[in-house]
Amino acid sequence: MSDPKKIKRVVLAYSGGLDTSIILKWLQTTYGCEVVTFTADLGQGEELEPARQKALLLGIKPEHIFIEDLREEFVRDYVFPMFRANAQYEGLYLLGTAIARPLIAKKQIEIARKVGADAVAHGATGKGNDQVRFELAYYALEPDIKVIAPWREWDLTSRTALLNFAEQNQIPIAKDKRGDAPFSVDANLLHVSSEGKVLEDPAQDVPDYVYSRTVNPEDAPDKPTFIEIEFKSGDPVAVDGEALSPAALLTHLNALGRVNGIGRLDLVENRFVGMKSRGMYETPGGTILLAAHRGIEQVTLDRGAAHLKDELMPKYAELIYNGFWFSPEREMLQALIDKSQEFVTGKVRLKLYKGSVGVVGRSSPYSLYDQDLVTFEDGAVAYDHQDAAGFIKLNALRLRTLARRKSKAKAK
Amino acid sequence: MSDPKKIKRVVLAYSGGLDTSIILKWLQTTYGCEVVTFTADLGQGEELEPARQKALLLGIKPEHIFIEDLREEFVRDYVFPMFRANAQYEGLYLLGTAIARPLIAKKQIEIARKVGADAVAHGATGKGNDQVRFELAYYALEPDIKVIAPWREWDLTSRTALLNFAEQNQIPIAKDKRGDAPFSVDANLLHVSSEGKVLEDPAQDVPDYVYSRTVNPEDAPDKPTFIEIEFKSGDPVAVDGEALSPAALLTHLNALGRVNGIGRLDLVENRFVGMKSRGMYETPGGTILLAAHRGIEQVTLDRGAAHLKDELMPKYAELIYNGFWFSPEREMLQALIDKSQEFVTGKVRLKLYKGSVGVVGRSSPYSLYDQDLVTFEDGAVAYDHQDAAGFIKLNALRLRTLARRKSKAKAK
Amino acid sequence: MSDPKKIKRVVLAYSGGLDTSIILKWLQTTYGCEVVTFTADLGQGEELEPARQKALLLGIKPEHIFIEDLREEFVRDYVFPMFRANAQYEGLYLLGTAIARPLIAKKQIEIARKVGADAVAHGATGKGNDQVRFELAYYALEPDIKVIAPWREWDLTSRTALLNFAEQNQIPIAKDKRGDAPFSVDANLLHVSSEGKVLEDPAQDVPDYVYSRTVNPEDAPDKPTFIEIEFKSGDPVAVDGEALSPAALLTHLNALGRVNGIGRLDLVENRFVGMKSRGMYETPGGTILLAAHRGIEQVTLDRGAAHLKDELMPKYAELIYNGFWFSPEREMLQALIDKSQEFVTGKVRLKLYKGSVGVVGRSSPYSLYDQDLVTFEDGAVAYDHQDAAGFIKLNALRLRTLARRKSKAKAK
Amino acid sequence: MSDPKKIKRVVLAYSGGLDTSIILKWLQTTYGCEVVTFTADLGQGEELEPARQKALLLGIKPEHIFIEDLREEFVRDYVFPMFRANAQYEGLYLLGTAIARPLIAKKQIEIARKVGADAVAHGATGKGNDQVRFELAYYALEPDIKVIAPWREWDLTSRTALLNFAEQNQIPIAKDKRGDAPFSVDANLLHVSSEGKVLEDPAQDVPDYVYSRTVNPEDAPDKPTFIEIEFKSGDPVAVDGEALSPAALLTHLNALGRVNGIGRLDLVENRFVGMKSRGMYETPGGTILLAAHRGIEQVTLDRGAAHLKDELMPKYAELIYNGFWFSPEREMLQALIDKSQEFVTGKVRLKLYKGSVGVVGRSSPYSLYDQDLVTFEDGAVAYDHQDAAGFIKLNALRLRTLARRKSKAKAK
Repeated sequence: MSDPKKIKRVVLAYSGGLDTSIILKWLQTTYGCEVVTFTADLGQGEELEPARQKALLLGIKPEHIFIEDLREEFVRDYVFPMFRANAQYEGLYLLGTAIARPLIAKKQIEIARKVGADAVAHGATGKGNDQVRFELAYYALEPDIKVIAPWREWDLTSRTALLNFAEQNQIPIAKDKRGDAPFSVDANLLHVSSEGKVLEDPAQDVPDYVYSRTVNPEDAPDKPTFIEIEFKSGDPVAVDGEALSPAALLTHLNALGRVNGIGRLDLVENRFVGMKSRGMYETPGGTILLAAHRGIEQVTLDRGAAHLKDELMPKYAELIYNGFWFSPEREMLQALIDKSQEFVTGKVRLKLYKGSVGVVGRSSPYSLYDQDLVTFEDGAVAYDHQDAAGFIKLNALRLRTLARRKSKAKAK
Repeated sequence: MSDPKKIKRVVLAYSGGLDTSIILKWLQTTYGCEVVTFTADLGQGEELEPARQKALLLGIKPEHIFIEDLREEFVRDYVFPMFRANAQYEGLYLLGTAIARPLIAKKQIEIARKVGADAVAHGATGKGNDQVRFELAYYALEPDIKVIAPWREWDLTSRTALLNFAEQNQIPIAKDKRGDAPFSVDANLLHVSSEGKVLEDPAQDVPDYVYSRTVNPEDAPDKPTFIEIEFKSGDPVAVDGEALSPAALLTHLNALGRVNGIGRLDLVENRFVGMKSRGMYETPGGTILLAAHRGIEQVTLDRGAAHLKDELMPKYAELIYNGFWFSPEREMLQALIDKSQEFVTGKVRLKLYKGSVGVVGRSSPYSLYDQDLVTFEDGAVAYDHQDAAGFIKLNALRLRTLARRKSKAKAK
Repeated sequence: MSDPKKIKRVVLAYSGGLDTSIILKWLQTTYGCEVVTFTADLGQGEELEPARQKALLLGIKPEHIFIEDLREEFVRDYVFPMFRANAQYEGLYLLGTAIARPLIAKKQIEIARKVGADAVAHGATGKGNDQVRFELAYYALEPDIKVIAPWREWDLTSRTALLNFAEQNQIPIAKDKRGDAPFSVDANLLHVSSEGKVLEDPAQDVPDYVYSRTVNPEDAPDKPTFIEIEFKSGDPVAVDGEALSPAALLTHLNALGRVNGIGRLDLVENRFVGMKSRGMYETPGGTILLAAHRGIEQVTLDRGAAHLKDELMPKYAELIYNGFWFSPEREMLQALIDKSQEFVTGKVRLKLYKGSVGVVGRSSPYSLYDQDLVTFEDGAVAYDHQDAAGFIKLNALRLRTLARRKSKAKAK
Repeated sequence: MSDPKKIKRVVLAYSGGLDTSIILKWLQTTYGCEVVTFTADLGQGEELEPARQKALLLGIKPEHIFIEDLREEFVRDYVFPMFRANAQYEGLYLLGTAIARPLIAKKQIEIARKVGADAVAHGATGKGNDQVRFELAYYALEPDIKVIAPWREWDLTSRTALLNFAEQNQIPIAKDKRGDAPFSVDANLLHVSSEGKVLEDPAQDVPDYVYSRTVNPEDAPDKPTFIEIEFKSGDPVAVDGEALSPAALLTHLNALGRVNGIGRLDLVENRFVGMKSRGMYETPGGTILLAAHRGIEQVTLDRGAAHLKDELMPKYAELIYNGFWFSPEREMLQALIDKSQEFVTGKVRLKLYKGSVGVVGRSSPYSLYDQDLVTFEDGAVAYDHQDAAGFIKLNALRLRTLARRKSKAKAK
């Protein structure tokens, strides 16, 4: 815990909800410091103006309330670069929460510099990954910033204690927040994640009411939807012929994914802080995007490039999951990945149907697929069958030497 | 091409179909050598006795006709070890063709030793991966064996030439083989693959008639099917409470996958011989198995083990794809993977529905998931929130040092 | 800090020196608990009996004083397995300190079980790697053990405070320990390391008096020494024809290295706890051993195996450096490495001369080197030059396709 | 073999020596084509003008004789980028031959475009790596170029046959070329390599007369030489305070290395074409440079960046060794490596002595080494010992969970 007397002004990542409102008040009363709020629209699907009203109500100066629409920046500078890598943590998770944290942290630091704040604060708990992600980003951008993590510091360790604190401090409590939430949610334009409480037993199904961003596949249309996504140098730029900004494009894919029940994931994952946790993710647009990006890479990416990317992907995904977005090694891997995307340009057709998405066609002006080369037909050019014999012979050479040693060794 | 005069006896991988029958006769006439046939049941779904009859008809001595049911060995010693690694080539392909080749090659070598043959032959073409897989395995097991690859040697380079050769040599031609096949197929218990001809344009959808092992997801039942797979030390041992042998288990999963339209993959992949090709794969049981294995690993595999496996998987998959099953590096990786599977034991529940498969629950007597550790609730043990603060601080230390350098560098 | 009232009996890694004697007394006075001492001979070159006398003097019960010669176990089960991997941290460091910690920790835990102790303690400081290595090993072997790390807990933060505490508690202080040591030392059979104080400026030369295990190369003999090391399945078993136990062999190589000035390393390295530190290492025998092991692998290890080992070595070395010896991922990598060593058998001749060591010859009954294959001479067998043409052509295929795309793209 | 009638003009990598002169004439007589010669100064230490005279004598048109000094380009664009990666093939080899081939190939292709040649030719043999390196580079730069590799095509397979051909074609034969060379040599500014004949038995010492670029360490000065190398963004720019161009700098380091007997390597390596070969390398300047570059990275490179580089180095080195300099994957890795070098700036002091080189000091305006952080002394800032406790606890969490499972499993 930082020395309370020493903090003068703190920039809080503020959602306007009950928990961060309690934090806001707790910062004022415990640290006696001025609180600056930062509320971002990352596509979580909530109005931001109520956050402003609530902040004013809690005594924040108007000039200390920062509200910003980050959706385009989020998708363009964070989501899309990550999708160039086909990143999936532990083989499956599309990193929807992890990728949002560095951007929020960066904005908090920028505001701290602007308003001369000496500290930043976040509402992440002490057992999760998000505290790590926020704080690694803070420190990487402003090494001497003070960080306040109320959930690790205070004694409001039960729902009752929290509500009491809220009441004592005139923080309005919405009726539906009186009771204990049956699970905890994080949302942005890329995904919704849910965890805790009713989800804690990994042997039990995720209850239907947990899902909020996708229909149940059983309720999706009985006919498939076919779409076409166009890519330019690794990033999607249009859907069904309509050019769209990054955030608009992801929003559109989310809508397509939602109705077709695409992108649900029930996962037990390994947290950076050392334990396993069970979560449920809905990433409708992202799931479509991953399939599409792999599809366009199939015809435009060279084997050497593709395999190198595949080998490094798990490390890249782990870095983002663990909160090392602003680290030299993530930036080095990004340089490698971006280098590969110059010609990842073209169109992918996909079939969306009751929970699944699959590529059904791809084409590119820069395609490396060469029908003449691969065809079974006569008259194909540029390939001499005898070359294959030599190729195999030299690849086999060391294996033959090994086999000879083996039989010599056995004979002994 | 080997010197015709020098080959005395050759073991041919013989399916009983037209193409390998032509090869059989071509070997007899070109090399003037004795042909020994080997026909394996790998679960491709064809009767084997007709192959015996045909071989006899083509003049093979009864004691030189070898027919073997390899299904259990195939699944137990090849498919399951590979699935322990969650192997997917280029992120998607479950390696159904690649994993069958080493076993066939191994059997051919064993028979060659038994009958004193000095050569082996296969029916793979000169542009594909299979020639490499067969021959690398041959050489790795018997370094001085002679290898005959008729498709790289003969001048029967058109359908017409092949049929003429068949007629001249009294090889029976089934009516449906007169015309040119619209695509080429490989099948075994793990999968069916199709490629060539009508599939050669990667922008065009796979025609419906190409699929043979799965129903169209649109035609699958409107209600989901829930199943439970039990694992023991990394391998599946039972489905829905019924213990099954490896081949029986995979056969059962295939049936479940088939009716639910699971496991179709339209892929453009990079061949080892250097070009891209477009294929269609159906791997119903394998697709279910991969999801299930990942599911049970989620609760039983430690993070360090899991991430190491994930990082090495692409290389492992590439080795199998390229035909290096019998190589020291594949065996080294297998030792690493197998070492991790001791406690990968427990049950996974899955939902199968119209083309998709997802884990909905997992449990294990050796679970590493610790509800007490992860819960948001009070009273959880064994975790001090202050530890997280220290953990973050030390992880941030180098990033803070970097940030200080950066600002110093800018100031210059 | 653990709750003092709750610790009953603690097993201390005790060297008999001033610092661990102060710790011993501090544990008794602060925790009011019984102290059990463990003193190990890892080849650090000090008598152990004085440690027994000192422990008795400080009130430890005779049956609670454990002294053990671990040299053979250390070299056989820790040093040699690590050298099978050619492990070097950050390209240079032979991990002499890191590899000793897990063994000491393991013995402490074994003694704790034997004497019913509920805690263990070590004398590593709060800024170093050793605290991590000790404690990760403790927890991995006995998850509920209590760990006391006095250097992180007490207020004896200056030399003066330490000496005062010693005097107040009748701990004998050797005269040469009155003053502040000019650097800090760790030693065992594999190496001596020095760091701190006079070594802290990485721009300044290491002073001559810091070296203790090797002569200055300038003072080494003017004639080279030639030796021959014999390996069996990856481990050295004899030097110059004399079979030696693991510890005896390493001791012998140390002597050879010492007189020839071999194995000095001046290094700035990255600690796991986040900062850079400068150290000086002397690893005479280990430096010879690494060269020799690489030498015998050159003729006995297949390329695929060798390259896989080389790619994974940095990760393996990092795991040991960071203290993860008893982790699943280290054990998985060890399984992979050990799998490769079956035929790493044979003899290596080396030249030792004034600070450098080099392989000058190697031979093996299992050599994969094939003079017939490689020779420029006529008549060589088993290699058809035309195979090379095919090999190159297929390796070039994808590069040619890429080149064609590039010129097409430019033309646009 | 290409169709002789179809080749009109070929660009030959021509050294002016006997072998490439024979090739020149053989191309004229066998292919009946016009030969264009390209002779490059890569620092091999031979006069180039005699090559011009010889080419004229053999009937090459003056405008078809190309001679170029490539030393600066070689070091600046090939050697230095490679040294940024600390590249060593199979742990030891500094890739001196491999790194020169792509540049020669590139120049041949440029000349082929200029003079309208349809083919290129080189003098590399059919068993080595160089044929692969030349040809992969040719094809990557000019996919439809024809490649002639005389050593794979002709029947001049004995020394006698070659000399007879030379005599029949009036090719002058130097007296010392009459007999068979006792080994084969490749040289450029980075290294000299020798292999074949007297070096073919890997158990036998390299004879003294094979070395040409370094004195025997025993004959080197009895006093060490101390030098200082300055780096800027990863590349060396000055030695002992004197700014030098890339080639001048390497030349200077070669001289320093030569007199001190530095950079000899006796190696058995794995060729890309599948067999092991034994070679002897002398890389005096490069050996010094590698030590120095590692030294400056030690204080300027972050741990995350350094470890990522170390993990990828073996793959990068393998790509260069195998001839894939002009491949997307090498370029991607280069982008990653170069990204890390921005602050690799500063000075390294080294001690050169009788065959060995070691860093004795390093300093940088961008040093990440922080004496305040690492010191044992009181009053150090920015590090709270309790953070270490938390750091260890969370790193241990998963290991403790594993240990609990283990004892539970045993209890069963």
